[in-house]
Amino acid sequence: MKRENIVIIGSGPAGWTAAVYAARANLYPIVYEGEPSPESVTGPELVEKMKQQAIRFGTRVVSENIASVDFSRHPFILYPTYSEPFEALTVVVATGANARWLNVPNEERLAQMGGGVSACAVCDAALPLYRNQVLAVIGGGDSAMEEALYTTKFAREVLIVHRRDAFRASKVMAERVLTHPKIRVLWNKRVIEVLGMNEIQGLRIEDTVTGEVSDVTVGGMFIAIGHTPNTQFLNGQLGLKPNGYVKVEPWRTATSVEGVFAAGDVMDDHYRQAITAAGSGCMAALEAERWLARRGLGESPLHDMETAGAST
Amino acid sequence: MKRENIVIIGSGPAGWTAAVYAARANLYPIVYEGEPSPESVTGPELVEKMKQQAIRFGTRVVSENIASVDFSRHPFILYPTYSEPFEALTVVVATGANARWLNVPNEERLAQMGGGVSACAVCDAALPLYRNQVLAVIGGGDSAMEEALYTTKFAREVLIVHRRDAFRASKVMAERVLTHPKIRVLWNKRVIEVLGMNEIQGLRIEDTVTGEVSDVTVGGMFIAIGHTPNTQFLNGQLGLKPNGYVKVEPWRTATSVEGVFAAGDVMDDHYRQAITAAGSGCMAALEAERWLARRGLGESPLHDMETAGAST
Repeated sequence: MKRENIVIIGSGPAGWTAAVYAARANLYPIVYEGEPSPESVTGPELVEKMKQQAIRFGTRVVSENIASVDFSRHPFILYPTYSEPFEALTVVVATGANARWLNVPNEERLAQMGGGVSACAVCDAALPLYRNQVLAVIGGGDSAMEEALYTTKFAREVLIVHRRDAFRASKVMAERVLTHPKIRVLWNKRVIEVLGMNEIQGLRIEDTVTGEVSDVTVGGMFIAIGHTPNTQFLNGQLGLKPNGYVKVEPWRTATSVEGVFAAGDVMDDHYRQAITAAGSGCMAALEAERWLARRGLGESPLHDMETAGAST
Repeated sequence: MKRENIVIIGSGPAGWTAAVYAARANLYPIVYEGEPSPESVTGPELVEKMKQQAIRFGTRVVSENIASVDFSRHPFILYPTYSEPFEALTVVVATGANARWLNVPNEERLAQMGGGVSACAVCDAALPLYRNQVLAVIGGGDSAMEEALYTTKFAREVLIVHRRDAFRASKVMAERVLTHPKIRVLWNKRVIEVLGMNEIQGLRIEDTVTGEVSDVTVGGMFIAIGHTPNTQFLNGQLGLKPNGYVKVEPWRTATSVEGVFAAGDVMDDHYRQAITAAGSGCMAALEAERWLARRGLGESPLHDMETAGAST
């Protein structure tokens, strides 16, 4: 069976940064970037640049998913969707998290075309598009409160649309939101349609108690109803936090399985920024490199960067 | 007294990234970048780009040190070296850590001109300059072991120069080093001079037991005798780890003082990479922003990015 020093699963900022550092350490990393999908996440241009840098340093890239893993033995066994299983001495899990969407008409299209629908206020609210507009924030947890407060810096008014009559958020956050002069809460309301062709015009909302439907005019919408970390393929073989994110040690990327490291949004339920993901990707590569070095593994250079060709 | 929302002390990747995110959140940050010094640290071009980006987003920059702080009251009081003290609602400490040097002839000059002397193997060992050379690593702790093992990937031979007859490093690391075919240890030796005009040619070493002096030919030297985090100006007002680095919460940048955050090498004794520092700088800015938002502080925009001029 083919054996790899380090396999990086995922192709966001964490994965590519891990690849750059692993390649620089002469570990000849391989990245399973997943199958091409129309769903773009963080700044596609930035991520493409990171990918090209990783390739330039000698990273190999496979456009396939890892369907499942066996972490019960070492070397680990990884099962790609189509090609042959293979062994890995270390693994970096960098599969990210998907924002939850409302799954209502026009939402996905407007999000993909930058038409005023976003799942990350911290990433997008400062854009000119959202300035001095009435903006909607959807959700009732701490994240929704944080996004709403952040959004007030740019918005004329912020409407929180929440399907219940109380927030799940902590008391201090809820109070801050409820007393904020720029924030108004639409209780017991759910969005049933985003209105707008190329740019958001408004929201069609339904009262969850009376069933009454009405339209509100907004210039932007931030969805803050949570994220789902992509951990399904792990099939319970890594310790997770109660909220489903991969559990890592304090300021380390080591997981519950020795030799398996996690970086980026799959383990970060708090910041979710490209630069924080990249930072933890670097950490994971350095930890994997040291993990191998301590065991005398991954030392005989399978590959010399100076004679390396392009990626496969 | 003038009052600031957020003051960032330090001007490396952590400080500038914190400034970018704080500026994006309309907090109108101010960076005390310290006085100009010839001692450059991380890739000056990259850092200059980050600085320009922070300024473009509305960051103000002061080329002065913060000589001391008063964290015993809130708002905090900050005392610059020359100008008037002022108040700060939040502070990001991003003052970095200085590598310890041997302080022997030619060392500093060769380090500054890229002549084969470096305090960071992970940063530099992959450079062509160091390929297939005999490389020296100076030190006897875990960091020195890690740097030596890392360096074997590129070097023809690695000489560890250690002033004692045993390593301080953990047993597993010491054993790995001692059994590595590419590594040779020069026990009881200290470097008394680096030899070379524009590029390192060798080391003059003295036996710490017999006093005997001899020269060894090397093509590069990595100094791994530790770092000193720049915490003096804090005067004991932040909790530190036993090794002197600022103590932060697990995967957070919050320090022992509410409203004070630490990012980058001043709190990271393990990775010390530009990208990890930048990631934690982003974290610190987001935490400071949320800390202010929860308290209803820093909300009345002192400054609107759209009308912002250049930095002062």
